[in-house]
Amino acid sequence: MSLVKLSIKGISYSQTQNGAYALILNEVDGERKLPIVIGAFEAQSIAIALEKEIKPPRPLTHDLFKNFAERFDIIVKQVIIHKLVDGVFYSSIICERDKIEEIIDARTSDAIALALRFNAPIYTYKNILDKAGIYLKANPLEANKDSQEIDDVLSNPDTFGREEETNQSGHTYSKHSLQELNELLDQAVEHEDYEKAAKIRDEISKRES
Amino acid sequence: MSLVKLSIKGISYSQTQNGAYALILNEVDGERKLPIVIGAFEAQSIAIALEKEIKPPRPLTHDLFKNFAERFDIIVKQVIIHKLVDGVFYSSIICERDKIEEIIDARTSDAIALALRFNAPIYTYKNILDKAGIYLKANPLEANKDSQEIDDVLSNPDTFGREEETNQSGHTYSKHSLQELNELLDQAVEHEDYEKAAKIRDEISKRES
Repeated sequence: MSLVKLSIKGISYSQTQNGAYALILNEVDGERKLPIVIGAFEAQSIAIALEKEIKPPRPLTHDLFKNFAERFDIIVKQVIIHKLVDGVFYSSIICERDKIEEIIDARTSDAIALALRFNAPIYTYKNILDKAGIYLKANPLEANKDSQEIDDVLSNPDTFGREEETNQSGHTYSKHSLQELNELLDQAVEHEDYEKAAKIRDEISKRES
Repeated sequence: MSLVKLSIKGISYSQTQNGAYALILNEVDGERKLPIVIGAFEAQSIAIALEKEIKPPRPLTHDLFKNFAERFDIIVKQVIIHKLVDGVFYSSIICERDKIEEIIDARTSDAIALALRFNAPIYTYKNILDKAGIYLKANPLEANKDSQEIDDVLSNPDTFGREEETNQSGHTYSKHSLQELNELLDQAVEHEDYEKAAKIRDEISKRES
């Protein structure tokens, strides 16, 4: 299976009850986006790593992870989102020490938070992007919008609410028919509600798998 | 300075607005308790590690840390809470690989979450316990009470609320006089509200430092 390189577009969040966040990954050589619902803590950790200026007073867990790895001359070489089952993305971090590689299973949110800190490339497989990628027309305003969203994430500790695991996403859509879901997905994409789109997409992929 | 060994008594949490948690450490050779205000995510990670039966479907960040360390033959040997400044506890994790030791700065919540996963002993310095330890009469019911509290933490994902950093603790008490604070501390201890006691204690230690 061929690997597709992804870049991090940003974090989108809604003030909806569930208070979930969507990490938005971009196909580097294409137009598709891969939104992944993540928890509040992971969203904060990723947002802080994206905002280069901001240094937390004490190391966050992922910062500790990096300090720990560096102290023992271990690097995170790359991250691969290698599986999508029942709306849950599975990732691996590929690490190296003394030219010896180790592949370690990780939640996608942890893998991305670490990839950012090690400047490691992020990949997924073509079939995963085909299944879960969302096509959007390019929008010049989005870049600013996302950085605004990231600022919002950082400046609203109160919204670091109910930790939501990826494997819980989509539950709210379980009652809809597949056709309804596809219509809802189109609407969500139209309104650029990435987090909603991600959860609907996850529910659809559950039905399909 | 002499080291004092600590055991983990449990996690106490209140349904107060701030939704903070208190990690309660016990002096092994004494009666004093060291409550430390931690964030919701760290409280969850520690609570899950305390509940041996519970295995999260996907590795939490601290589980990933352990898998990563083990893969590279690194162990966390011990954790030392070595500094208390302005109501913030500073910790170090002492790691070892091939008999070579590394000391790494960490937030106390991360350090404890890792100590639990590596069965590593937890220490602090006598002067820190003298300053921040809270004396309580032994209470046979507390053990059960704490395990109940841990169950509550685990069974109430909704209470994994506003992530509260240790260095924010005590702000709500900044307007009180030192005498008022000491009275409030006595009351909190009397009512076994560890989280409140910890925050008042942190505010007091701020004034003293």
